[in-house]
Amino acid sequence: MSTAIQRDKSSFLYQQVVEMVMEMRSSGTLRAGDRLPSLRSFSQGLKVSIPTVRQAYVELERQGMVEARPKSGYFLKAQNIDVQGPKKATPPRRPRVVNKQSLIEEVFTAIHAPGSVALGLANPTAAHSSDKALARVMRRVLANAGNKAIAYGPMEGFPPLRRQLALSHIDQGLQIDPSEVLITNGAQEAIAIALKCVAKAGDIIAVESPTYFGVLELIESLGMMALEIPLCPDHGVGLADLEAALKKHPVKACVFSSSISNPLGSYMNDERREALVHLLESKDIPLIEDDVYGELHFQKTRSVLAQRFSTKGLVLTCSSFSKTAAPGYRIGWLLAGRFHDQAKRVKRALSCSSSLLNQWTLSEFMASGEYERNIRVLRQVLERYKQRAIALVTEYFPTETRMSNPQGGGVLWVELPSKNHGNDLFHRALDHNISIAPGTLFSPSDKFKHCIRVSYGVQWSDKIEESYRILGELVKEGSS
Amino acid sequence: MSTAIQRDKSSFLYQQVVEMVMEMRSSGTLRAGDRLPSLRSFSQGLKVSIPTVRQAYVELERQGMVEARPKSGYFLKAQNIDVQGPKKATPPRRPRVVNKQSLIEEVFTAIHAPGSVALGLANPTAAHSSDKALARVMRRVLANAGNKAIAYGPMEGFPPLRRQLALSHIDQGLQIDPSEVLITNGAQEAIAIALKCVAKAGDIIAVESPTYFGVLELIESLGMMALEIPLCPDHGVGLADLEAALKKHPVKACVFSSSISNPLGSYMNDERREALVHLLESKDIPLIEDDVYGELHFQKTRSVLAQRFSTKGLVLTCSSFSKTAAPGYRIGWLLAGRFHDQAKRVKRALSCSSSLLNQWTLSEFMASGEYERNIRVLRQVLERYKQRAIALVTEYFPTETRMSNPQGGGVLWVELPSKNHGNDLFHRALDHNISIAPGTLFSPSDKFKHCIRVSYGVQWSDKIEESYRILGELVKEGSS
Repeated sequence: MSTAIQRDKSSFLYQQVVEMVMEMRSSGTLRAGDRLPSLRSFSQGLKVSIPTVRQAYVELERQGMVEARPKSGYFLKAQNIDVQGPKKATPPRRPRVVNKQSLIEEVFTAIHAPGSVALGLANPTAAHSSDKALARVMRRVLANAGNKAIAYGPMEGFPPLRRQLALSHIDQGLQIDPSEVLITNGAQEAIAIALKCVAKAGDIIAVESPTYFGVLELIESLGMMALEIPLCPDHGVGLADLEAALKKHPVKACVFSSSISNPLGSYMNDERREALVHLLESKDIPLIEDDVYGELHFQKTRSVLAQRFSTKGLVLTCSSFSKTAAPGYRIGWLLAGRFHDQAKRVKRALSCSSSLLNQWTLSEFMASGEYERNIRVLRQVLERYKQRAIALVTEYFPTETRMSNPQGGGVLWVELPSKNHGNDLFHRALDHNISIAPGTLFSPSDKFKHCIRVSYGVQWSDKIEESYRILGELVKEGSS
Repeated sequence: MSTAIQRDKSSFLYQQVVEMVMEMRSSGTLRAGDRLPSLRSFSQGLKVSIPTVRQAYVELERQGMVEARPKSGYFLKAQNIDVQGPKKATPPRRPRVVNKQSLIEEVFTAIHAPGSVALGLANPTAAHSSDKALARVMRRVLANAGNKAIAYGPMEGFPPLRRQLALSHIDQGLQIDPSEVLITNGAQEAIAIALKCVAKAGDIIAVESPTYFGVLELIESLGMMALEIPLCPDHGVGLADLEAALKKHPVKACVFSSSISNPLGSYMNDERREALVHLLESKDIPLIEDDVYGELHFQKTRSVLAQRFSTKGLVLTCSSFSKTAAPGYRIGWLLAGRFHDQAKRVKRALSCSSSLLNQWTLSEFMASGEYERNIRVLRQVLERYKQRAIALVTEYFPTETRMSNPQGGGVLWVELPSKNHGNDLFHRALDHNISIAPGTLFSPSDKFKHCIRVSYGVQWSDKIEESYRILGELVKEGSS
């Protein structure tokens, strides 16, 4: 490597370093998501000064080729992801009865099939599992709790966990009392309770388009109707679109993921989120905020919770440990604002209480600081895998393919060349033991049928890389 | 003791043994629920033959004073419990909107208050906890499962647990496929799903009177109406009453506990249960059977599941591990008959899936045979505690007090002398750190206000005995 730098060339040394990185990228030596050598080791290897390497990295960052991550170094970004972002959806603006049940079942059967590569599952903890740390804590709880470990816990939740969660919201600028935290069976139950508090069968619920299919299934199950509000990949729900929809339809409540959305990975900035809350509260429309991906952002700081901007208590925050620590524990929470008393009752009626042992373990996991530390690492790993996944799609999929540039979370939203149908690709991928989530799942209408959602929040391996390659081949076949 | 037997007396030796036992009972040396000395040790102590002691025990059994339990010996029964059974309820025969929320909350706050004697909680596993055995199994699962221990499980449930549950129903004469078992967050969620499958807001649901308040809370939460059908302490739901009610009201479904009811502990024999199923199916009315106490019977064999008699698939069985092993695990199941596909979807919508680790642990607990063995011991312990509780109420409560003779489960239903009010007693007992469940909880109407439910399914201790004594004193104060 040291031979490549020529001191007699007319270009600056740092420019030569820049060119070298760009060549390594073209040749595939360095791939999107890879960490560049540290300043020290690169300077030693190239026999240039550390400031020279730093200047090169800063220049690469300026050009959008690499990005700096605090305490981690510089990472190669994927190319051209901005120009190929997905189009903003323009779904029909009328409420829909939802019916995606059999497809959802097919997808989940595929995901749990033995030997399948589960790119269809949104399970980002797989990228950096905290299973060993959690098992350690749980063994300690088992040793200390005695028969309390299997006892009924209080219906609203295990008090130490409610306290930890209240504490964790201080960082987010939200001062809440532990008694305002209601523990649920995952965020799904939290959203179910929230919806039951604010709406009834027949009511219209506004959702993002595309949105998480679990929300659609819930709306169907409760006999409500879904109204799609187009999601802008860069800004989240369009406020003008929303306002127009509210004028046209008697929307009873909204279920949005304005921090980090699923499947788009879009991000709404705090100013827009504040405007969203004000718009809705001015019309007395409750906002159910699904924040499960909020901690898994790729920004400097996490977004401010929508509830923080609430002045009327009409914002209900739903979240869980499923995307950050332990999906299988089935522990989530609901901050129900002015609906808290009602929410408590619905929770009791639906399932009494949530697993005490799991709550106990999570409360100690939080108290020890390990939970936060794990999330920090998980974020970095996910962002690296995101870059890699984008690079793989860029490399293997047809050039007309568009994709999201997720601002957090663990999934990539891919718009296939128009001849492809996501459902068809789903079935053909299954023949190769690869599961993906077809786009039609994410809307009650038939939009997004040429889209798929693929996960990069996985335990990365050669098999994953190979699966992305195979998917690309299958798409090319479909396009021809 | 040996001096008490007089060989020159005119009475037979065995009669002297009988009298001796009766005296020990009068003096309080032997108490209801106590195990009599074994044949061998008693014959040695009294210096009489083993057949003499056996003859005495058989005579005592014939007189209804003691009862024989296979492989356990002879136990002293409580006195006069039949003549003081609770009156059959005759509640108003019109559907009711339920509203017991704030009282339920008060009761549960009291139960979980530190230092409280929780006679208000129906948690029979406390009488014989399997926490150590379960902790052992869970440690093994943690060691073997790796990151699967925290992963999402299949939405319908962990396959090995579904298989174990299918197997366990063979004994009950019900041949089901593992795929027909839906795992839920406790029986409460199972009943919630079942109700959502068969009825909608505004519909009338027939319930036992008195019935478990969790069912009433659920009916309220779903916007349905409850119609009370009087429960006969000895025979369960009155079929004639039910038939009359069905003629008068458009009942959409029934939620009954015909194996062992809560709070009465009544038991419906298999013939009557079969007639119940035929009556309901002849009118195409679904029966949601809450069988959580079915295993905790005091008969020779457990009752046949109502579902076994179903010919139209209209019986839905709800149960859980909460009363037999681990309430805090929040794992139950639903056998939804012809509603299975619909039930799966409702489950997914409400809470995705249930805790995988807890399911895994329970499946291994079942597979090892330990679960069954624990239940056998639990049954015996509960029956002993029942006798003791009945004896304590007989001893300490006013003579006009009536009470149930539970055929299973872990709770006693007590009808106080008429001047007493259960809610009032509940509050006064709280001053002594004793929680009980006031009778009004168990009906949407104001019936049962002079009743209370007290648990004998507890970790028995002197403090429990003392609590029964204090309750008796408080009732006497109330009656004066």
